[in-house]
Amino acid sequence: RGIRVGYTPDVLTDATAELSVALLLSACRRLPEAAEQVKSGGWTTWKPLWMCGYGLSNSTVGIIGLGRIGQAVARRLKPFGVKKFLYTGSGPKPEDAAEFGAEFVPLTRLAEESDFVVVTCALTPATQGMCNKEFFSRMKKTSVFVNTSRGAVVNQEDLYNALAQGQIAAAGLDVTTPEPLPTDHPLLSLKNCVILPHIGSATYATRNTMAVLAANNLLAGLRGEPMPHELKL
Amino acid sequence: RGIRVGYTPDVLTDATAELSVALLLSACRRLPEAAEQVKSGGWTTWKPLWMCGYGLSNSTVGIIGLGRIGQAVARRLKPFGVKKFLYTGSGPKPEDAAEFGAEFVPLTRLAEESDFVVVTCALTPATQGMCNKEFFSRMKKTSVFVNTSRGAVVNQEDLYNALAQGQIAAAGLDVTTPEPLPTDHPLLSLKNCVILPHIGSATYATRNTMAVLAANNLLAGLRGEPMPHELKL
Repeated sequence: RGIRVGYTPDVLTDATAELSVALLLSACRRLPEAAEQVKSGGWTTWKPLWMCGYGLSNSTVGIIGLGRIGQAVARRLKPFGVKKFLYTGSGPKPEDAAEFGAEFVPLTRLAEESDFVVVTCALTPATQGMCNKEFFSRMKKTSVFVNTSRGAVVNQEDLYNALAQGQIAAAGLDVTTPEPLPTDHPLLSLKNCVILPHIGSATYATRNTMAVLAANNLLAGLRGEPMPHELKL
Repeated sequence: RGIRVGYTPDVLTDATAELSVALLLSACRRLPEAAEQVKSGGWTTWKPLWMCGYGLSNSTVGIIGLGRIGQAVARRLKPFGVKKFLYTGSGPKPEDAAEFGAEFVPLTRLAEESDFVVVTCALTPATQGMCNKEFFSRMKKTSVFVNTSRGAVVNQEDLYNALAQGQIAAAGLDVTTPEPLPTDHPLLSLKNCVILPHIGSATYATRNTMAVLAANNLLAGLRGEPMPHELKL
């Protein structure tokens, strides 16, 4: 019979999509760098282009993996004035993409045309290392890259080079390889890279919901009853 | 005849609303503090409530001053799962508030019921120092305060005390008194306060639009023609 395993599906979509947008905005509007200027005394008189960033108005947003979380990201980004959504990946059904007028394109075209690339796909053999030198070289110099899926989708050495050489404008990562990322990692030396400690689902409400689901799974399992959410392999 | 003065109206609504949301999300999801943990080595193994914040799902958002920018903020926050919008202030017409189902309430009720308070009003004798000890004492311990209007709307000593004593959860400020804020200001010592150097309109697109408008005003003025946007007093 083996060991029964409970899990907590679908409860972190909203929190993770919210964190994805937070990270995108922090990277494109340069929030950590700007906050640092306040602390260091770099904030002086008004200058026309000081601390300018790239906004979402009239932009093209490319989403790699338009599943539950990708769609929740698109839904939140739309009222910021996004002009066009592109997506790639194995899912979803066309009716899901229609809500955003999202167009399915090959990965290369998504890289070339997007002002913002958001990665929300699953990590599979097909997506591992997918965001590499070739991918970043096709992106615009003014574009922003965000990954809230799994660290291994990105070739971090290639991302470092793209950011350091100005091939892309900025990046935001909630996931890295490995986790935790060593504190002497080169990516942490870049001003245009915002790195978070995998806090996609870190809201009190979400973690409480996860805890209650886990407890109910456990209690049902101990009673020998069907779990509310049981992993079936 | 005096000196003719041109200005650049209405061009920074989108950029400022975007920055307001960026600041709100940074404060409530604790982005600067979390990014610092990555750099300092505080990111270790997974713990259920580490770096948890308060999300927008099912929240009540109170907007002080539902003018052009306040409405643009509400429009962007709505798809994050906001349950209810409250507003106060001298404007707007009811038809503007209807888009968000926003309810007009007195300032005290807005403070008491909002999970997020966003200040986007003008600075006037009526709003100067409006967010003070009395105001913060009515807010919830779990609520987040954001100001992207003018620094003097807030009593900064009262805000410091509210944040330091845990009367409110966090704050985000794009405006301060004075500007620039001295680098030894007590607010800068708080982990739960994100302070930006007045970058509301700081996007390349917005600043370019402002520059073109200013140049066209100037050229028209030099030719003795009507300016595209001339200040009439």
